[in-house]
Order: sequence, then C-alpha cells, then structure tokens
Amino acid sequence: MIRHPAFACEPWSLRLTGLDVDVLAQSESLFALSNGHIGWRGNLDEGEPHGLPGSYLSGVYELRPLPYPEGGYGYPESGQTVINVTNGKLIRLLVNDEPFDIRYGQLRSHELSLDFRDGVLRRTAEWESPDGYAVRVSSVRLVSLVQRAVAAIWYEVEPLDEPLRVVVQSELVANEQLPSVAGDPRATAVLEAPLLACEDDARDVRARLVHLTRESGLCLAASMDHVVDGPPGTGVVAESSPDLGRVTVTASISPGHPLRLVKFVSYGWSGSRSRPAVRDQADAALAAARQTGWDGLLAEQRGYLDDFWARADVQVDGDAEIQQAVRFGLFHMLQATARGEGRGIPAKGLTGSGYEGHCFWDSEAFVMPVLTYLLPEAVAHALSWRQSTLPMALDRARQLGLRGAAFPWRTIHGEECSGYWPAGTAAFHVNAAIADAVTRYFDITQDEAFEKTVGLELLVQTARLWRSLGHHDTEGAFRIAGVTGPDEYSAVADNNVYTNLMAQRNLRAAADAAKRHPAEARRLDVDEEEMAGWRDAAQAMYVPYDPVLGVHPQSDNFTNHQVWDFAATKPDQYPLMLYFPYFDLYRKQVVKQADLVLALHRRGDAFTPEQKARDFAYYERITVRDSSLSACTQSVIAAEVGHMDLAYDYLAEAALMDLEDVEHNTRDGLHIAALVGSWIALVEGLAGMRHHGDLLCFAPRLPSALTRLSFTVSLLGRRLRVTVDRETATYTLLAGEPIKIVHCGRPDTVAMGAPVSRPIPPISPGEPPTQPPGRRPAPRQSMLDTGIRRPAAT
Amino acid sequence: MIRHPAFACEPWSLRLTGLDVDVLAQSESLFALSNGHIGWRGNLDEGEPHGLPGSYLSGVYELRPLPYPEGGYGYPESGQTVINVTNGKLIRLLVNDEPFDIRYGQLRSHELSLDFRDGVLRRTAEWESPDGYAVRVSSVRLVSLVQRAVAAIWYEVEPLDEPLRVVVQSELVANEQLPSVAGDPRATAVLEAPLLACEDDARDVRARLVHLTRESGLCLAASMDHVVDGPPGTGVVAESSPDLGRVTVTASISPGHPLRLVKFVSYGWSGSRSRPAVRDQADAALAAARQTGWDGLLAEQRGYLDDFWARADVQVDGDAEIQQAVRFGLFHMLQATARGEGRGIPAKGLTGSGYEGHCFWDSEAFVMPVLTYLLPEAVAHALSWRQSTLPMALDRARQLGLRGAAFPWRTIHGEECSGYWPAGTAAFHVNAAIADAVTRYFDITQDEAFEKTVGLELLVQTARLWRSLGHHDTEGAFRIAGVTGPDEYSAVADNNVYTNLMAQRNLRAAADAAKRHPAEARRLDVDEEEMAGWRDAAQAMYVPYDPVLGVHPQSDNFTNHQVWDFAATKPDQYPLMLYFPYFDLYRKQVVKQADLVLALHRRGDAFTPEQKARDFAYYERITVRDSSLSACTQSVIAAEVGHMDLAYDYLAEAALMDLEDVEHNTRDGLHIAALVGSWIALVEGLAGMRHHGDLLCFAPRLPSALTRLSFTVSLLGRRLRVTVDRETATYTLLAGEPIKIVHCGRPDTVAMGAPVSRPIPPISPGEPPTQPPGRRPAPRQSMLDTGIRRPAAT
Repeated sequence: MIRHPAFACEPWSLRLTGLDVDVLAQSESLFALSNGHIGWRGNLDEGEPHGLPGSYLSGVYELRPLPYPEGGYGYPESGQTVINVTNGKLIRLLVNDEPFDIRYGQLRSHELSLDFRDGVLRRTAEWESPDGYAVRVSSVRLVSLVQRAVAAIWYEVEPLDEPLRVVVQSELVANEQLPSVAGDPRATAVLEAPLLACEDDARDVRARLVHLTRESGLCLAASMDHVVDGPPGTGVVAESSPDLGRVTVTASISPGHPLRLVKFVSYGWSGSRSRPAVRDQADAALAAARQTGWDGLLAEQRGYLDDFWARADVQVDGDAEIQQAVRFGLFHMLQATARGEGRGIPAKGLTGSGYEGHCFWDSEAFVMPVLTYLLPEAVAHALSWRQSTLPMALDRARQLGLRGAAFPWRTIHGEECSGYWPAGTAAFHVNAAIADAVTRYFDITQDEAFEKTVGLELLVQTARLWRSLGHHDTEGAFRIAGVTGPDEYSAVADNNVYTNLMAQRNLRAAADAAKRHPAEARRLDVDEEEMAGWRDAAQAMYVPYDPVLGVHPQSDNFTNHQVWDFAATKPDQYPLMLYFPYFDLYRKQVVKQADLVLALHRRGDAFTPEQKARDFAYYERITVRDSSLSACTQSVIAAEVGHMDLAYDYLAEAALMDLEDVEHNTRDGLHIAALVGSWIALVEGLAGMRHHGDLLCFAPRLPSALTRLSFTVSLLGRRLRVTVDRETATYTLLAGEPIKIVHCGRPDTVAMGAPVSRPIPPISPGEPPTQPPGRRPAPRQSMLDTGIRRPAAT
Repeated sequence: MIRHPAFACEPWSLRLTGLDVDVLAQSESLFALSNGHIGWRGNLDEGEPHGLPGSYLSGVYELRPLPYPEGGYGYPESGQTVINVTNGKLIRLLVNDEPFDIRYGQLRSHELSLDFRDGVLRRTAEWESPDGYAVRVSSVRLVSLVQRAVAAIWYEVEPLDEPLRVVVQSELVANEQLPSVAGDPRATAVLEAPLLACEDDARDVRARLVHLTRESGLCLAASMDHVVDGPPGTGVVAESSPDLGRVTVTASISPGHPLRLVKFVSYGWSGSRSRPAVRDQADAALAAARQTGWDGLLAEQRGYLDDFWARADVQVDGDAEIQQAVRFGLFHMLQATARGEGRGIPAKGLTGSGYEGHCFWDSEAFVMPVLTYLLPEAVAHALSWRQSTLPMALDRARQLGLRGAAFPWRTIHGEECSGYWPAGTAAFHVNAAIADAVTRYFDITQDEAFEKTVGLELLVQTARLWRSLGHHDTEGAFRIAGVTGPDEYSAVADNNVYTNLMAQRNLRAAADAAKRHPAEARRLDVDEEEMAGWRDAAQAMYVPYDPVLGVHPQSDNFTNHQVWDFAATKPDQYPLMLYFPYFDLYRKQVVKQADLVLALHRRGDAFTPEQKARDFAYYERITVRDSSLSACTQSVIAAEVGHMDLAYDYLAEAALMDLEDVEHNTRDGLHIAALVGSWIALVEGLAGMRHHGDLLCFAPRLPSALTRLSFTVSLLGRRLRVTVDRETATYTLLAGEPIKIVHCGRPDTVAMGAPVSRPIPPISPGEPPTQPPGRRPAPRQSMLDTGIRRPAAT
C-alpha cells in the first residue's frame, strides 16, 4: 500500500516529492496522461528506471492464442491483448559523460506533479552525476484533450554550478523491452516485440516510424517534430532505423542558459486504411500541433478542463484527501473517455496493460452512470462502439444457441476474449448493463437521434438475448438459469436477482423504445408479438426470496449454502481467489463484490426499504470486497439505509483505491470504475441521488466528519447544483427550465434564480451491520482523528 | 459405424475377413492384446498401413504442461499422457524386391481372428507382390497372461507358386512416428518422440533397447529373442542403433518349405530402480519366455483362460451377436485387468491412447462391480493402487481446503490431470465409487486382511472428504453443494442425488469398518466422535424431491430448468457437447448419461418401486446417451421396472458399443466400462441380481427374443450358476456351503447337488417410456427380425 508521505494532499493536483523505486510502477499509473485515444504512462522522460514502460493507443491490440487443457465448443481460441506501441515520450540525456539516471549519482530533489486543471504532468529534478556535475531537468508533458492524435513535451536542462556539455536524445522507440510478469493471473500477458517495422524516416528535427502488428494486422505510425532552443553552437541530427527514430541535440550550456526543446508527437493507426494513409494522418496531426505550438496546446488543454470542471467538479469539506481523490478520479475518468471516439472504455483506461487492456461491464455499469451526467457525448461514443461490435455479438449469440446479441465479457475489438466461460461468457449481465446505459443516456439527454440510430438496436438485440436465455416455467414465471452474476465468487447459478431484475428493465426498455420508434423497430424486424413477449417475460420475471431468513438469496439456493469459514481464513489469504479454489468459493456463502447489493442500488425500485435494510445487513456479513467494484456500491446502500459513517468508510476505500494501492495492482493501471466510484458514493450515496425514469430524487445526509458536499449534474438541458451541509440541502438551478426534484420523499420544483433549501430529517438506522473479520473497511473517522494523513498542501 | 459384414459372428472369437483400411484403426483396438501390464494394439505385423500404432505399458506416461487462458488456484499445471513405448511387434518382410504391404500388389485373402479361449490373435494373408510373386504370411500373436512381462509372435512365410528370396526384419522400434490427431477434444494429445535413448545392444538373434522418458524420468527396457526355423542357407544378422533393434533373417524358400520364426519380446520399466536393474529385469523375463518356448506359452495361455471362463462365462441363447459380444467384453475386461498389479485400470485399458490413457471413476463404478464376482484378485490389486496414490489424494484435498482424500478425476500416476475442474475435480463422486468398490469387495470376499490394510484406510479418508465437503444446514440436514454428478451435461450443482446417496453409503461403510477394526482405525486417528460425525451426516443426508412432478430432481432445481429443445436438435448434432456450449447444456434438462438412474441402480435400497418407475420414465425422456457409460445402467433399470424389450435394446447398445463403433471413437481404444456393461445389463438387468450387504437377490426375466441366459458368480467362497429361461430360473451351487438367495422377493436356500428352480412371475409395467427424438436405442428385436446381422460362424 502506498502510504507514502511524499504524495502531497492538494485539492487540484497529485504531487510526489522524492522518488521511491518501490512505488515507481504504481506512480507511473497514477501519473499517466491520456485523452482516451493516446495513453502515456507516467514513465520518467529518460525511460529508466521504470516499473512498466507504457504507450498505448485505444484499440491497438495483438492477437494471442487461448490454449485450453480440455477444449470445448464455443471456447474463444484467440485473445486480444493491448500492446505497448511506439514510445514517443523518451528523452534521454547525457551530462558530460554520464547518462542521466536517478539510480546513479545523487538525486538532490525530484518532484512529479499532475495538475488536474492544466492537464499536464510537471517534473523537476536536481541531480548530480557520479562525476559531480549538477543539473536541473524540468519537463512538462501533455496528451492533448483537444488534438486527439497529439502529445507534447516541454523539456529543459540547465547546469546548476558550471558549464557542461549535454546531449539530448529525443526518441521514438518501437518494441521496447518490457519486464516479464508472472504469478498473479490478473496481470497481463506481455507480448514481446509485437511490431513489424515497415518504414522509418528522419530529416531536420523530425522522425517517423511506421509499423504493423504481426497477427492483428494493424498499421500504426508515430511521428515527432521538435523546436530546439539552445545556446549558439547547439547541434541537431535526426536519424532513423526500423525500431528507432532519434533527434540528437548537442549543446554546451551554462547556469542561466539552459537547453530547451519542445517535442511534438503524433500517432495514427488503422486496421483498414493503407500504410501511406496512416503515415500521412500522423504527419498531418503533427503539422497541426506544431502550428498550434506549445503555448497553444497548453491553453487549449486548460480551456477544455475549465469547461469540464465547471460541469463536473465536486467539493467536499472536512476531508482533504477525499476532496483530492474525487477530483483525481474524475480527471482520470475524463482521460479514459474524453476522446475515445469509436472505441470502448478499458477497465484500466490507457494507464497500464492490466486486464490485457480489455473492456468489461465496468464501463457501462460504473463509468457511464457517472459520465452521463458529466460528459454525455463520451457515453454516446462508447455506446456507438458497442453498436459497431454488434455483428460479433450477434455471431456469438448464434454460436451459443441464443437470439439477439451476446456482448463479450472482455474484449478490445469486439470478439469474446474470456478464456474461462463460467466467469466470462456466462456473465450475461454485461448485456443488461449496456441496455441500462442506453436507457439512462436517453433519460438524461432525450437524444432522439441517438435512440433511433444506436440505442434502439442495442435495446432490441439485448432484449432478444434475454428472451431466449430465459424460459417460462409451468407456473408461468420467467426464469434465467445457469448464469453468473456480478459476484465472481459464485458462478453459473439460477435466477441471479441482479441479473433477472436488470434483464427485466432491459426487456421493458426495449419494448418502450420500439413503441416510440415503430419505423426503426420494424427495420429491426420487431413486431407486436415480439414486444408482447418481452413485456410478458419482464412482468413474470422470477425473483427468489428466502421467507425463512427474510432476505433475497443472491441466486436460487444461495442462502442454503454453507457460510465461508471466515474465522479460519487468515488476513494474508485475501484476495481469496489466490488462495482458495473457485470450486469452494462458488459453493459457499462468500461474496467477492456487491451483487444482490448492486441490485438494491440499480433496481432500488424493486425492493422495500425494509428489504433493503435486511438484505444489506445480511450481505455485509459475507462480502469480502476482493474486487475494486464493490466499495462504492456498498457505500451507496449503507447511506440509503442510514449507516452514514459506514458509507463514508466505503467512500474512502473507493476514492483511495489507487492512491493507496488497496488491491496491490495499481502498477498494472488504474481502476477507472473504482475511481468514478468516489462520485457514485458521494452523489448516489451521501446525497442519495436516484434517477428512475424522469424522477430525480435526493435523500442527502452527511457522515459526521464532513461539513459540506457540493456537486453539479447536467440533465435534460438543465444544470443543477446540489449543496449539502449537516442540516440542509440546497438545490440551485444554474441553467435551463425549472426542474422537478424530490427531496427526502417530498416533491419540489427548482427554477433559475430560486434555489430551494430543505432541512435534512434525522434517521435512526439501528446497529450498523458487521463485516467478515478483518474485512471491515478502514474506519475513516478514526484515521482522521489519529492524524494518519498525508501532508496538506504547501 | 462398423457394420462390416466381414466381422463374423462366432461364439468364441472375433474374426475379420478381408481388410478395409477405413476401419483399420477401429480393428486395431478390437484386436488389441493385453494382460493389463503390456498392451499391443492389433497393428499389422509389418507395421503399415496403420490407423494408430500402439504399444503400451501400464503406468508409463510422459508429463505435459496444462495451459490455461486464465489460470486459477489449484488448477493442475502438469498432465500425464500415456506414450507409445518401444514397438516389439514389428516384423517386416521383403519378398524378392518388394516390401510386403497390402496396399500394393494384390491381397488375395486376409483374415484376423481373436480367439477368446486361446488368448491369441491369428492372422493369415495371401498376397501377390506387384511383381507377381505370391506368398502366404501367417502369424499368431500373444501377450502372456501368465508371464506378465512377455509377449510373443509365431511367424511364417511361404511361397505359394515358386521359390523366392525373402528377408524378414524383426524389430524393436522406439519413438515410432504417429499420425497427428486434431479436432475431437476427446482424442488424446499425441506426444512426439517421448523416449531418450540410453542403451542399445544386439547379438546373435537378440536385441535390446533401453530408454528414458524425457520429463517423467521413467526407465524402460525392451528385449527380443528369436527362434529361427528356415531352410539351409538361412542367414541371421542382429544389429542395433539408439531407437532400433533389428534381427534380419534372409532365406530362399519354396512352396512346402516356409521360413518360420518365433519372436519373444519382454518389457521392463521403473520410475525408481536403476537402468541396469530395469535392463536385467527385461532380459530375465526374456530368458524365462524362451525357456517356456512358444508351445509352452500357448499352453499356459489356454490354461489361464480355461480357468477364467469356468468362472466368468455367460451364455445367451437367442442372439448370437450378444453371445459373442458379452464374451468379447469379458475377454477385454480380463485383458485390461488381469496383470495390472499395482496400477490402475485405464478407461481404454491398454488398447489405445484415448483419454490419454487415464484412469477415471469407470474402473471402480463399472468395471469392479463385475470384476469382483469374476476376478476378485484384480480388484484387490487395483484398489491397492488407489491406496498407493493416497499421499497425492491427501495433498489434493488439503490444497482444496478439504479433509481426507480427494482422488483425481483422471490420472495415470495419481495426481489430478483434469484441466477443467467443473467436469473434473468437482466430480467428487469418484471417491464414493472407490469406497463402494472397497465395500463390495469385502462383502463378496470377506477378505479381512485387505480390509485392515487397504480397505479401511480408503473408507476412512473418503468419509473424511465427504464430511468436510458437506455441511449441516439450520434444519440439521446434511447438504453437499457445488459438485458435479455423473451426468457431464450438468455441473457444479447442489445435492446431486447420486452423489449424496453414494456419500451416505461411504460414510456408513467407514463407520462400520472402523468399528470392526478398532486398532487399525485408531492408527488412522479415527475416534468415536469422528465415527459419530459420519453416522450423523449419513443419517441426515439431504435428498431433494420434487413433490409436484413426483420425481427426484437429479440435483437441486434441476426440474425447474428448461427442457432441452430436442425437436430443434438435428440428428448429426450428437454428441451435443461437440455442437453446443457447456453453458447451455448445464442449465437445461438434458442428460448425457445415467445419473439419477445410476442412483436407482446403485442405491436401489433408497427408492420405492413406484419412485423408480416414475423417475426412470422422467429421465428417459431427457437422456441422450452421449456417453458410453449409460446404456448398461438404463438397461438395468428398464429391466427392474419391467420394460424388458427396452432393457434388451440398451443391453445390445452396451454390448456392441465397440464392435459397432457406436461412439465413433473406438479407433482410440475400447470402452472397457461399456464392454463390461453387457455383463451388468445381463446379470443385474435381465437377471435382476442385487447384492446389498449379505443379501443376494434375483428378479430374472427375459426379453422376448432370448430363450435362455446362464451365468456364474463367485462370492463368499461359493460358486453359483444361475440359469434363466422364459418361465423358470434355476440356481445351482457349483462349490461351497449352502447359500441364501432371494428370488423375486421370496427367500430360498441353494445347496450343492440341490439346484432350486423357481417360476418367473408375470409383470405388467404399462407403457414403455419415451426417449428424445432419435435417441431411442436401436430396437434389437426388429433388427433380428429383419435379418440385419453379421454372418454366423462358418
């Protein structure tokens, strides 16, 4: 766990002072820059030391065979893995005779700072070479949110004591050597040298490399250009070889007369266009970047972010770490989605190669519920990507003997890449999450054009899946047998409550949308009979209930299973899946991540308040949170049933997931869904926001440590600010027509210029529920009280 | 399917006239010779053409990595595969300038005949070379049932028309080139060149090869010696190289003056003894064989088999094919088990590399229930092998978080080799089958020494497994969740009826045996508390029942699942597992092989006759028999509930499984368990024999086609012959003290010299049950009526 005193706690940035090689890989993830199209890990300019070098392009992957000891019908035989593309961030430095490498000589000071408003990564290092020559190296790095194919680096080196000869090598490097990874099955399979060189070129201060991926046959080009600002006599040479483009700058510099250069980098790739087209695309982007210039790129970036924060900022008073963390999370959410046009949202964004760069249900089930209120155009893009993969999803359903679309559990390009079907293909709930994201997007934006061209088709094809996946039993109930719900410590069970309820919403949404757009529905061969079949199935959806215990079993029979022997489980045996066989986890009452509790959140309309309280208490006792996709949901329901301090504890866990490396795998990339979980826990948890259909409800209440929470949501052409303090909630309409809201069960209307303040009624939730031994979230209040905190801003 | 008119229907042999290359691989399995230690497929003497060359030694395997696309805790990472060892059966022939190869020139006649009483494979071929020279080649091959390490071949070549020069090369060949196999996941992974040469030697008419397996580190030696009988001038040369031992005989022969040779082959192998020790062991066995001589080996073989058939023969009047098939099956059962001392019984015996040569539950659940009555010493050996693997089974249980022993689903050496745990490790019922085999062996033999030294420990460690695998629920019922029963079209379900009832018997048997042997039990740390725990669990064992349908669900919830859409399933989509995903098979009502119906058989004491009739009818409608381990069980229960003609149809399917290649994979080896299924269907089916504890019951009844059934069982020091005709059953005690039997519910006592004849009461079972479309077994009676039969003996 990074409990690193050097991570300063600042409201608008993440700053690391000093450099600990042990946390290098984690910090590379935390300081990654991305625009959703290009991803650059926070590797040091000079490339080494590193945890994991990483440059990614959304959608660029290589194929690898999926081997099985015992094969079976329908097992995917080819997997997709994100690859480390041409590294354009490398700037090596030679100080007199010594390469600048912080492992040697003496590092006098080092600071990395990620600025959430400027959208840049700043670095300053003062270093004394083994020979005793001291320099200050400064750099500012950005991946442009405005110019999608462009990244840039401002770089400066200055002697601290005496004149020096320096050589700066600004490079493009393909097929970088990567550290080998083994052990943890969650870690990615690293592919060695995936790029075949096609073309390399260098002239003036420019260089370009064009490569093809070996198996997937994608073409990618990387180009760089420079502005060099050095003392008289500064020399520049450009050269290239198949895997290396290099611009070498030599200069004799003295204190007060640094060498500066700006490096512009552009990428282009395609699976269909010609190699010259891809090359020209990269060169064109580079020309635009150079034309904009460094200051122009900086200004554009700030402008983009000013607009984003005006829509998205969340203010938290009383816990500076949470304040920082929620902005950190929203910044990385933005980076993962802003310019991912036509591609999915990988679980790790473009911050690392974890989960092989795959997109999972995370994007629709966790990221989009936040993104829709803050950056709805990114949701439309990501759902359009899902639609673009429909031919593969229809094929997959057909292969599985089902109708409609079976979207993959994990993929980059669209084909199923899950090599273990009980926790992959069988997790059909991903399809309901996609439909839910479509429904929410439409509810919030009323984007008719999207619904007609994208949304309806996704709803129809997923509804068809559910209709064929379930069946009416002899009593008429609609059952969905043998599927896997969100909880990965259960699999292939009957009538998973979450799945059935989400399928129910999916079926209804499809029927409703088809009714709204009859012409488009007919083009998809939907007729009245089919719509009636969806409504029937939804109406008759079976939801198991255990009347003896008075709770909902997660799936049929779940509450008859033996409860996991938590007392005999040692603290170092978590996550359980690394120390116990799936066979045993599956047949016991132990929950990896919110499943029934996620149903209480997403389908809260299907439960009474009393059921929610009992169910939550029951599942708290057996939920171990071995997944990053749990704490935020537990926070939401803890808040709903009134356990505000517990909600706060879960909020903190979600918010600090990567900043404190809770899951010990931040090195492989950030948990984008967990990061947005801090927004979910604050807005849907503490503020109790629920949005079913056209009803926007709030039930705000703060935990004892917090004094104020304020956030903004945009919907239906309005922008609404909600501010909650200990006694009162205030609703302020910043833009748009008056809007109806419900505050703690009471309807209200908020209009521009007429904020509404309402008192927060008290709540008596009774005893807080218990968690498995050792699995209680860290009690945030007592951590604050005892002062285990990172230093405040300086 | 082999519906080959050339397979003559003879009571005591299997004869193939002519040679069809298309059925070569199947015939190599059918004509395989083995003694349970050495296995030689029925490859042609000259080696080619072949379907699959195969020489096997029980327990000789190579390791191979088991790769997973997504690994997990407790997944076996190393698999074991039977390898093709040094081929000692090769005898090549050159006729003048032409190699004897039936694909070239003209094959005037060809006959292979496997003699069940002599225990030899005879061959005669008359062949004319492309140059027009005609020879008769005759050979007789045996793998000695008496001399475990020895096989031998009598070989003769004679010109038919004119004098000829012939060269005979008798060889030992290591690392034979094998055909590559792909597609069907049931087919074995073929390992190329698994043997490392250590030593080769040749002198006089002898040669020897010694090899090591690369990864598993086993040492194996093969030696050969010859007696050559040729005309004056016959020359002999012996030579060797690392992978080849060769004795070359050259002779000029004329009609009436053939060249004859006898080839003696011996094998030795060990995983622990030194290379010289293994070499000397093979040479010693060879010396003994040569000393015995060809005629001596033949006479020993006949003597061994005369004794076996006196104990084991079954006579069936009215269906010559079934008569042949049951003897064929018993002969191969004997070959698979007779001399397998200290090793398991592979699913395919030593007749092919199918299922990678692994032992499964088949051996305890199907082979031993027959073997115990006919060859009990082989059962003791095979169970002692299980005991020898206990350290690995105890480790496996520990790894899985269980107590006692978890025996592997598939293995050669003892470690789990199943790479798909839902249909492997989770099939814990293999442990109950082992315990059941122990219990049956003791019930039938009263072998106290075995029980004390072998049986008790197996019972105790398997009982411990069940006790830790299940749990008492809040009502006190003992439940076993998340395991896989026999039916491989369901997996990881709760309270599989078969598993729970077999576990119940296992728990009780362990408690009873521990009580009988308190001192031995104490040495295994069994105390009164533990025994009481076993009895409690057995007493409280939960058995699900569906009161609405009035049937037992195979597992919890099974009868709530959708019934498989049989109407939409095409005839060429069987076996379903090759055309549909497991996910869909698992969640529907479709049964690959008897599961609940196997419970009706093995735990018939736990069901009323009415339940049996209803359950059988219910499961008949959804059972597709995509496994060879089903027809015999369905036959038994069909007979018990009175559907004699259906029982007869299933009997025929089991009996003809390999002779007619019902499963299309006889090429990979015979289905030993299905072969013994013909005995099960005749004795436990038609004759209704049941043996619970010390009560031996019969309920005999013949289908309309059969006129008489007679068989012998040995138990408790007695030998009892049972003869059934259409009206009467006659019980004749051939040896031993008087014995109590129950005939159709009525007790009787049978003494030596006092046969008991009893009438067979009529039965009115009502309408026969129906099967899924196209999955009804072939109606045997109408096949007999329409004369689709193989030719009778000539």
